Amino acid sequence: MAPDPLSAKFAALADPTRRAILARLALGETSVSELAKPFAISLPAVSKHLKVLENAGLIGRSREAQWRPCRIEPVALKEVDGWLEQYRQLWEERFDRLDAYLKVLQAKQKKPRVRPKRRSPPR
Amino acid sequence: MAPDPLSAKFAALADPTRRAILARLALGETSVSELAKPFAISLPAVSKHLKVLENAGLIGRSREAQWRPCRIEPVALKEVDGWLEQYRQLWEERFDRLDAYLKVLQAKQKKPRVRPKRRSPPR
Repeated sequence: MAPDPLSAKFAALADPTRRAILARLALGETSVSELAKPFAISLPAVSKHLKVLENAGLIGRSREAQWRPCRIEPVALKEVDGWLEQYRQLWEERFDRLDAYLKVLQAKQKKPRVRPKRRSPPR
Repeated sequence: MAPDPLSAKFAALADPTRRAILARLALGETSVSELAKPFAISLPAVSKHLKVLENAGLIGRSREAQWRPCRIEPVALKEVDGWLEQYRQLWEERFDRLDAYLKVLQAKQKKPRVRPKRRSPPR
């Protein structure tokens, strides 16, 4: 069974080489051989990664030019962003609570410094 | 070789059941048996999914309570969001260009309606 589109995108992104390919394509479209250069892997291995990215809709390949340049399809990443959106509020709340907690800690740290001074005069 | 943390997160998210578990946990922490209820899968299958989510840092499990409730770790999703951030500009530019193109199309559609009226008087 083929994975749903969102699962296919996440699976395609679960590989550092494929993410590096996307980062390169974010700079502009290029050929497969050009894409393969910085990687210590074979051209067929790069082609396999490109196939995964293409099937997930994350890249497109021109059918016009003979060298079939690859390009990133950033709108497909927007779908991933749309899924994340529902959780954004959760981590923002978490950071807000952490922030409030740090302020409490800082307030507590200030107090002990004041007390010893107050205790010293009666001696 | 263990995958890098970001790859582990993407791999964990590449499954609709695991994403549904996260969506449930976003509402509040709960037990494994409670989590399993809406899914037509066995308790061991749910436990396996939870292990994947836990290894990726996307959920945490309390070691204090005997029923070991699961909770979502939204800050781990923020890491995924941080990776996406670098591509946000790309898809926003893409939408801006699409927007500009649609305006050109709308402007072209308006012109033909005006022309026939101008042509009719000489008849």
